[in-house]
Amino acid sequence: MQFTTEQRLDDGVFEREFTLGEVPGILWTPAAASASAPSRLILLGQPGGLGLRKMHPRLAARARHAAADGFASVAIELPGDGDRPRSADAEQARADLRQAVRAGGPVDDGIVSRLILPLVDQAVPEWQATLDACLALPEIGGPVGYSGGVISIGIRLAVVEPRISAAVLFAGSYVPRIMVEEARQVTIPLHVLLQWDDEGNDRQAALDLFDAFGSKEKTLNANMGGHTGTPQFAGEAASRFLARHLN
Amino acid sequence: MQFTTEQRLDDGVFEREFTLGEVPGILWTPAAASASAPSRLILLGQPGGLGLRKMHPRLAARARHAAADGFASVAIELPGDGDRPRSADAEQARADLRQAVRAGGPVDDGIVSRLILPLVDQAVPEWQATLDACLALPEIGGPVGYSGGVISIGIRLAVVEPRISAAVLFAGSYVPRIMVEEARQVTIPLHVLLQWDDEGNDRQAALDLFDAFGSKEKTLNANMGGHTGTPQFAGEAASRFLARHLN
Repeated sequence: MQFTTEQRLDDGVFEREFTLGEVPGILWTPAAASASAPSRLILLGQPGGLGLRKMHPRLAARARHAAADGFASVAIELPGDGDRPRSADAEQARADLRQAVRAGGPVDDGIVSRLILPLVDQAVPEWQATLDACLALPEIGGPVGYSGGVISIGIRLAVVEPRISAAVLFAGSYVPRIMVEEARQVTIPLHVLLQWDDEGNDRQAALDLFDAFGSKEKTLNANMGGHTGTPQFAGEAASRFLARHLN
Repeated sequence: MQFTTEQRLDDGVFEREFTLGEVPGILWTPAAASASAPSRLILLGQPGGLGLRKMHPRLAARARHAAADGFASVAIELPGDGDRPRSADAEQARADLRQAVRAGGPVDDGIVSRLILPLVDQAVPEWQATLDACLALPEIGGPVGYSGGVISIGIRLAVVEPRISAAVLFAGSYVPRIMVEEARQVTIPLHVLLQWDDEGNDRQAALDLFDAFGSKEKTLNANMGGHTGTPQFAGEAASRFLARHLN
């Protein structure tokens, strides 16, 4: 983990950009984090296709909220986003998905799988390497939570990464059918956000996914509005969920 | 409103039993409530068939939590419960409903309507009279919230009673189809609790009801477990919703 920039924000939060191999990322630590009082960590997911630079204001706002609760946060660039090399297959799959959405009707599972499954296969080990590197820093300790982003990445991480204790998932993107099956293996506490009128998401599919999760403790928090309209109080409820499980 | 008993609980909450016409009830006010600093009010609903005496421990616990947030709470005996006169029609409808549930399969809307609609028609004006009497007390002011109990009573109250500013509804009882239509007229902020595995409730019907509410702000908070298993954190989220809207 090579730190490339660092700045102290006005609320004392320490923001550092880094690269880990070929993956750029950003780490935020609360002002009070130290080797004698390490911060717990939240992995901040993000939607695909936008990139860290565009997402920075929203990610930094979430990280500063988390820092006020005593948590460090880390975000990494997804494969194919920002300055990371594009994959021709992924670009084609994304174009096919856009066309299928425009055409209306149900989107073919094959198209969704071609876009999402390679992304999950690549991003999850990168998240795990990020977790290794962050937990090796003296000012950061466990337990670890995952919050937001591409829900299939959150599902796979919850299944394969035992250091993740709780996850906030956003039911706002297409999920390959095979990932719904994988969701049955998730056992950690979950807080699932759903935008009831999400124009780019099939509500029944989101409810079926929620039903599939194997976790004994899972909450569905559904609110009015479209994909980007998650109300502030729902974000706060998600923060309380993480604080409850990581503290 | 005739007060019949009064006691000061160990946390300073003032608990008074009363009768209002033929309706018995219980009023809880926070220690600090006074004419110069009147408390906001929560109408505490309860499930049908149990009665105030059996429900007292649970209602008192909710009232004491609400008092800690600065709210007064009031509960009244539902028609046909406790010492209130039974209606032969309601008893027959309840027996028919039990039999239909035992038989399995969908429960006929006619049976549900025969049980619930007369209950709503009688209970709602009683709640409104209770509201009049409580708001006439110097130590109680508005705004007013409604929380829990038979959901059809909450729906009707939300539609007809403009003094109610926000409602927590428990999607845990049978709802006549005509009340789902009435739900479209509800416009106040709602926080709807759903137990995902509620053995006595049709999940899809509960989701359809949530969808029907006309409110711009409505949250569905679904959690694991059966009818009586609402987790503590879900109760706390409901309290925060009320505090947000009544403060």
